[in-house]
Amino acid sequence: MRNIKLTIEYDGKRYLGWQRLKDSDKTIQGKIESVLHQMTGETIEITGSGRTDAGTHARGQVANFKTQSLLSSAKILNFMNRYLPQDIVIKQVEDVTERFHARFNCTGKQYSYYVWNSEIPSAFQRFYSFQEEKPLDIEKMSAACEKLIGTHDFQGFSALRKSKKSTVRTIKDITIERDGDLIRFKFVGDGFLYKMVRIMMGTLLAIGTGELPLTVIDEVLSDKVRQSAGETVSSHGLFLDEVYY
Amino acid sequence: MRNIKLTIEYDGKRYLGWQRLKDSDKTIQGKIESVLHQMTGETIEITGSGRTDAGTHARGQVANFKTQSLLSSAKILNFMNRYLPQDIVIKQVEDVTERFHARFNCTGKQYSYYVWNSEIPSAFQRFYSFQEEKPLDIEKMSAACEKLIGTHDFQGFSALRKSKKSTVRTIKDITIERDGDLIRFKFVGDGFLYKMVRIMMGTLLAIGTGELPLTVIDEVLSDKVRQSAGETVSSHGLFLDEVYY
Repeated sequence: MRNIKLTIEYDGKRYLGWQRLKDSDKTIQGKIESVLHQMTGETIEITGSGRTDAGTHARGQVANFKTQSLLSSAKILNFMNRYLPQDIVIKQVEDVTERFHARFNCTGKQYSYYVWNSEIPSAFQRFYSFQEEKPLDIEKMSAACEKLIGTHDFQGFSALRKSKKSTVRTIKDITIERDGDLIRFKFVGDGFLYKMVRIMMGTLLAIGTGELPLTVIDEVLSDKVRQSAGETVSSHGLFLDEVYY
Repeated sequence: MRNIKLTIEYDGKRYLGWQRLKDSDKTIQGKIESVLHQMTGETIEITGSGRTDAGTHARGQVANFKTQSLLSSAKILNFMNRYLPQDIVIKQVEDVTERFHARFNCTGKQYSYYVWNSEIPSAFQRFYSFQEEKPLDIEKMSAACEKLIGTHDFQGFSALRKSKKSTVRTIKDITIERDGDLIRFKFVGDGFLYKMVRIMMGTLLAIGTGELPLTVIDEVLSDKVRQSAGETVSSHGLFLDEVYY
């Protein structure tokens, strides 16, 4: 059996997210599996590095699948891009060792979150950013990012129910870049809990507008109470940039 | 009567272009006029700086209209952005002198054309760029741009039938910026003929891939034969950035 690694870009706005549902036509996984079936005749299940929510985008999602197909990786790439809808693009197809597993072997990820910071909306960014009309104190937000960087229990910044699984994660870096009215927040870490980036972003924005004090970060990290953090901001601003192995 | 100047951004992909048609719901002008009628009760005709084709975008189209409305410019802006579809955004509303005319007073424009230069398509850029799979010789294209800059008869680079109107225009500057697979071509000039940017771009791309020699520019400028130039590339890559007065 071959084990094949896919690097995938998608515009998530039309989809219910990564994970296959009964209505597979509305999920990224479902769309890809259906093209792989068409290509090989096999029933193929792909393993993603993790799920992305409805509306979330990816520039470098990674998945793997097993197949007996003898098609070259270049032919697989061409076939998939011909038959996938144009908002899902296979960037790379690689043969990998049998043991490669897109989820278990993942050592980290980079996400970006985009904020359109203006009272006036953008005709182009509405599905690719979250609009914050109020002015933002970027220095204060940078200070808040410094507090998030490091190894912490991020339970309070997630939408997870309490469970036995560890909610300790390491954020290696958060950077903020402004280009006119568009602000990009880049998060690099060894892993992110369910809705963690969107809740951290909601909290950072509340700090930036002055609705919440800087100390809320310490509080949520120590008390682990979701309700103390900011709201979960829109999935439209979120991009999975890269998955590390 | 007040004379009001609008600065408008739009994502052109769903529209048949700027100019009102019978089916006004599919044109930018039609959409804007219908919201202005809703706002004022008056039958308002807006004058754009010029037309844009179906699929072409704008970051800074300018139009003006006369009204007896007493609403403040801030209220006009808010009303329009509330009732316009989200892919048309009013960026600015200004009271101007009675003599201001968006088309006649225009002294120049800036357009951008985006090329996605990769064999692999982009899930995000497909409505906002033209995909060129072949490698491009940017230096050769820069040399071609240098030949286009200046005052010339651009008849051969337009889709205009011969007429008595002058087809002499001045291109002040063309710049090329590459950011990964995306290349932006910026054109600044005192005016552009019908489809001129798209035909110049088709010619520049043919020079960049080696299909046409650099000398084709001199030839089309001197002989004014449309057929000698490159093809008219997709309107999806074209953005009207700014209109100068």
